[in-house]
Amino acid sequence: MHISTTLRHRRQRLAELIDFPVILWSGSSNSRNFPANTFPFRPSSHFLYFAGIPLQNAAIRLESGKLQLFIDDPHPNSALWHGETPTREEIAAKIGADDARAIAELEHYLENAATIPVQDAATWTQQSQLLDRWLLPQQPPQGNDLELAKAIVSLRLTHDAAALLELRKAASVSVEAHKIGIAATATAKREAEIRAAMEAVIIGHNMTTAYTSIVTVHGEVLHNNHYHHSLQPGDLLLADVGAETETGWAADITRTWPVSGKFSSTQRDIYDIVLAAHDACIEKIAPGVEYGDIHLLAATVIAEGLVDLGILQGKPEDLVKMDLHALFFPHGIGHLLGLDVHDMEDLGDLAGYEEGRKRSDRFGLSYLRLNRPLRPGMLVTIEPGFYQVPGILNDPKIRDQYQYLVNWERLEQFADVRGIRIEDDVLVTETGSEVLTAALPNQASAIEELAMQAKI
Amino acid sequence: MHISTTLRHRRQRLAELIDFPVILWSGSSNSRNFPANTFPFRPSSHFLYFAGIPLQNAAIRLESGKLQLFIDDPHPNSALWHGETPTREEIAAKIGADDARAIAELEHYLENAATIPVQDAATWTQQSQLLDRWLLPQQPPQGNDLELAKAIVSLRLTHDAAALLELRKAASVSVEAHKIGIAATATAKREAEIRAAMEAVIIGHNMTTAYTSIVTVHGEVLHNNHYHHSLQPGDLLLADVGAETETGWAADITRTWPVSGKFSSTQRDIYDIVLAAHDACIEKIAPGVEYGDIHLLAATVIAEGLVDLGILQGKPEDLVKMDLHALFFPHGIGHLLGLDVHDMEDLGDLAGYEEGRKRSDRFGLSYLRLNRPLRPGMLVTIEPGFYQVPGILNDPKIRDQYQYLVNWERLEQFADVRGIRIEDDVLVTETGSEVLTAALPNQASAIEELAMQAKI
Repeated sequence: MHISTTLRHRRQRLAELIDFPVILWSGSSNSRNFPANTFPFRPSSHFLYFAGIPLQNAAIRLESGKLQLFIDDPHPNSALWHGETPTREEIAAKIGADDARAIAELEHYLENAATIPVQDAATWTQQSQLLDRWLLPQQPPQGNDLELAKAIVSLRLTHDAAALLELRKAASVSVEAHKIGIAATATAKREAEIRAAMEAVIIGHNMTTAYTSIVTVHGEVLHNNHYHHSLQPGDLLLADVGAETETGWAADITRTWPVSGKFSSTQRDIYDIVLAAHDACIEKIAPGVEYGDIHLLAATVIAEGLVDLGILQGKPEDLVKMDLHALFFPHGIGHLLGLDVHDMEDLGDLAGYEEGRKRSDRFGLSYLRLNRPLRPGMLVTIEPGFYQVPGILNDPKIRDQYQYLVNWERLEQFADVRGIRIEDDVLVTETGSEVLTAALPNQASAIEELAMQAKI
Repeated sequence: MHISTTLRHRRQRLAELIDFPVILWSGSSNSRNFPANTFPFRPSSHFLYFAGIPLQNAAIRLESGKLQLFIDDPHPNSALWHGETPTREEIAAKIGADDARAIAELEHYLENAATIPVQDAATWTQQSQLLDRWLLPQQPPQGNDLELAKAIVSLRLTHDAAALLELRKAASVSVEAHKIGIAATATAKREAEIRAAMEAVIIGHNMTTAYTSIVTVHGEVLHNNHYHHSLQPGDLLLADVGAETETGWAADITRTWPVSGKFSSTQRDIYDIVLAAHDACIEKIAPGVEYGDIHLLAATVIAEGLVDLGILQGKPEDLVKMDLHALFFPHGIGHLLGLDVHDMEDLGDLAGYEEGRKRSDRFGLSYLRLNRPLRPGMLVTIEPGFYQVPGILNDPKIRDQYQYLVNWERLEQFADVRGIRIEDDVLVTETGSEVLTAALPNQASAIEELAMQAKI
């Protein structure tokens, strides 16, 4: 199917939901250390959803299913520096625009238009000036902007065939990156080398990383963006790395593997608990199921496993109610995935939370990013984990509060398990689910095999 | 030498040049597609020069050689997500600060302070608000801000021992990246794969690219940031890739090599002309020499070579005066290199152009980024090139204007030479120069040997 057909379908669906015009800006690039040295350009995801291709300094106006494109033709000198670039008319034809104009003409088409602020300051300032109201990316939308945001959420929550094609590509390249990463461990001396091997797969497919990679032997630091640690034989390496296609669709995979190629018995015990939680959650995914219940299922399986190992003491269900699982699994079971790795998180919880629901302030639930009944076409991550976070486990208040529920001496025997996470991308289907990242093994023995093959 | 000693020396030198207080902000990270998904943080180079390490959301105040650090202690929850991070006092000790305070206290230390605007909008807006004057990164500095900019330029124009240590590291890793890139050509099918192999070397050393890599079989597009072309046996591949160390110091290298491992005779003819220009320029580099004359030397050697090949007709010196070289070499011979790949270009031409000099509007000179007499400790690039840019060579006005000076039929025989550039990083020494990137071969036969070794 031609891209313009998909795009036409998307805007027709939008027109069924709202009756006012919409202008979406693509955004502009951010300067790094001087104006000409910019970070890679990344268009607004809402723009990409309706315009399909990454255009810089462009806007589209949508009304009653019609698409107007606003973009300037390339500067005459541009060919010298940037090569032949398509003209406005060529772009308009490609995306099926009904009309195409210079960006300066946008000012004549602003009336009653709703929008969503773009992340870069140059663009949201421009949006604010043109539409004559403050449009700050971190501020909740109001009025028609809120209606627009809700309409877009309802479209983007479930993925059409064109989106799934891209999401599968991102998943497939990310799977390959993880396989190469595991293999690279045999010779790598530092975390940075594993990261390099993995990101090279992504770059080599002309994709980008969808987010800053986590590649670390300190998996207990949840957002660890350092790569300087050396790899020691007893370490587990946690890699959370995902690709993004040229048109912006993301994957998000985590694997944890032993640097030596072989889990210790304590590492394997915990790994198998995390995997059991992972498998139970995926098993349960189906239309109508509450994602919040999936989270609680993971919490319960982890609590059960830790009781079995003698680390926790009590009935798993009771322990979960008291947030005991969150001592070791302090984040949510996953999130929406699409054009953004945390899909539509620029809209706060508007996408993640069903209307009328709010985040819990319970320690064990406050980080849950998705709280909706699942529907066919939704893509979510399932990413249970186990972490020994010093900031949590060494907190005297926590140790005091839970002194009879945690066997701290027993826990000390698992000191070689700092952080484990297993994350896959799961599509909700009509009858259940499909794991888009299933080509990447996650059983402990299969992971060991991948690691050991590289050693031969 | 401890970093704090270098930093103290730098701010003492600054204190000799100006007698007002200075506040330099580090900057903050830019959001990519949603607030939590940011581009990698890159501090302001001026901040890095005096603070030494990449601190986010920090500011330093310099007065009479004293350093005050303003940064907030990590949030108590920060350890969970980002691990243990150093406290304000630990950072202060590391960089030799005389005093350290929370960022909110900065407002009591603003009086008469000069500054330089940072690139990210959140920070330059904050700078503007606090100092109560508009500080736009693209606007020329005025008053004390201009005096400060000139003082910093005079310091950063020549590199101290600590800077050179970092610059040599960046050069060495970039050399390795190019060697791997040449070797990767044997099996690669697309430009993206060469880029991946080269950037993996940089990432693997826990460095970043100093600028968006150019890796293309269309070298005639000067700022080509696409990587989707397939590699054909007759193609030349042009790679302009450089590393940046963790504390921000850059390298900038270009090599051009044959995809097949063997230059065609026409490719080799042109390659040898570009290399002759490159070698002649480096040969001439010494204290006191005008960089503008180096540019003209490159232009003359290229014009001579093209006359010898029968592509240009006339006396080389006359052809250069008429900008004939610029038909094929439409950019400058190079630029300053340091913390920025175009060092201090955030200050416009304040660093590149000696006081009182302005850019020429001549076609053959307008892109010259550096126009100063050379001094020991300056690091510059030397990067002559030859390009067949359709936008220039197919321009009817240009073809008409130069119809008797270019042998267009002869030129057609060189159709397999779309773009060649050879770029090295050259330090001006007391007696001449030292090529920091000399470990990477540039002779045609040596390049072929590197490429052919990989094929075996």
